[in-house]
Amino acid sequence: MTRGTAYGIGVGPGDPELLTLKALRLIRDCPVLAWPATLDNDSTARAIAEPHIPDDRIEIPIRMPMVEARFPAQDVYDQAAVEIGDHLKAGRDVAVLCEGDPFFYGSFMYLFARLSEENDVEVVPGVSSLTAVPAALGVPLASRNDVLTVLPGPLDEEVLKERLRDCEAAAIIKVGRHLPKIRRVLDSLGLLDQARYVQHATMEKQVVEPLADMPADMKAPYFSMVIVHRRGEAWRLS
Amino acid sequence: MTRGTAYGIGVGPGDPELLTLKALRLIRDCPVLAWPATLDNDSTARAIAEPHIPDDRIEIPIRMPMVEARFPAQDVYDQAAVEIGDHLKAGRDVAVLCEGDPFFYGSFMYLFARLSEENDVEVVPGVSSLTAVPAALGVPLASRNDVLTVLPGPLDEEVLKERLRDCEAAAIIKVGRHLPKIRRVLDSLGLLDQARYVQHATMEKQVVEPLADMPADMKAPYFSMVIVHRRGEAWRLS
Repeated sequence: MTRGTAYGIGVGPGDPELLTLKALRLIRDCPVLAWPATLDNDSTARAIAEPHIPDDRIEIPIRMPMVEARFPAQDVYDQAAVEIGDHLKAGRDVAVLCEGDPFFYGSFMYLFARLSEENDVEVVPGVSSLTAVPAALGVPLASRNDVLTVLPGPLDEEVLKERLRDCEAAAIIKVGRHLPKIRRVLDSLGLLDQARYVQHATMEKQVVEPLADMPADMKAPYFSMVIVHRRGEAWRLS
Repeated sequence: MTRGTAYGIGVGPGDPELLTLKALRLIRDCPVLAWPATLDNDSTARAIAEPHIPDDRIEIPIRMPMVEARFPAQDVYDQAAVEIGDHLKAGRDVAVLCEGDPFFYGSFMYLFARLSEENDVEVVPGVSSLTAVPAALGVPLASRNDVLTVLPGPLDEEVLKERLRDCEAAAIIKVGRHLPKIRRVLDSLGLLDQARYVQHATMEKQVVEPLADMPADMKAPYFSMVIVHRRGEAWRLS
């Protein structure tokens, strides 16, 4: 029996049309689909792929408590890896759906670490929020010889400040409840007016605003991002 | 007469299957296609989209001298913007094909700056080399609260050194003839063994190697990248 292959498939940032042709083919062809979900079985990744999922698939929800923990519950991945591994051993290919791109701050790495020693695991890159957000803003993310810094919002205030102090272009991801802190740091560095806020990029509920216009005490959803450009509007003069 | 819309379309890193469904639809539907090319009319972006381009399209090659200049020949973009603008005025939608993602260090920004004041310009994000390369390597680009730094290879040696000194995860793009310099910097920081080299990710001619195994005086193609992780293999223990 030839073992199956596990595919970590980036399904993009939210708009189902941002699925790649390769993702589409694998979602249609793999007999088993796994996807991250809340404890209530709510799954953004599955919702993005939904129009293309055939009825007769074996589906494995990977249910994660949605707390903003630094280290997610590893036993959930242990169990999912066993379940997926059993299908691979039985010769069935497994498509693991991942929001955005699997290896850009994605939880797929936890499955990859568990599965890749004994199995063929292929990663199919997807459109990341890192480029979907600038497209939604109508602002180039980085150009020419810009240094681009990607910073997770949960970082300590002093670390964020230090990293943003000499940034040229920066993307602050996983904003969530950290928005007031991020705003404070940008304000203290004189960068607030060069910052833009986006939530749910490419989805119908997308919000795009200058960060300075958002309420200072606002709690943002997890899927939100702040983009900062020290250059301001200078790129337009190129 | 309603003006047409210009679409900046990311066609992904090279594998034609990494085109998005939205890119595919627009390439099929827009009566005019523009694409960056060499003076010899060679175009990677067009080659990626080729299987989907209908025969009867108006095509506009944007021919650029392939020198590694800091500031590309702006008159080429002036002229292309006039030509594209005329089609938009005549009510024709124009699809501008862009390698990777249009706003991730893409030359599309030069057209966007010229066209977006008078026209509707929509950016369709694509799979970027930034995530295609880690997928090819089988190595997560960034995870948890990693700071990710993206550095263009043409930066001065001292700037590269300063920015890499305290990096956690770094992607050095536009490597080209700068590979020996990049290698020197990583070696001096003790990071050479944590660096991986990839050229032509997702294409048939893809090359993936530890950077330390590459000849020290090698000239790399423009489409190559070096990925550095201070963590080394620690992520596997997650």
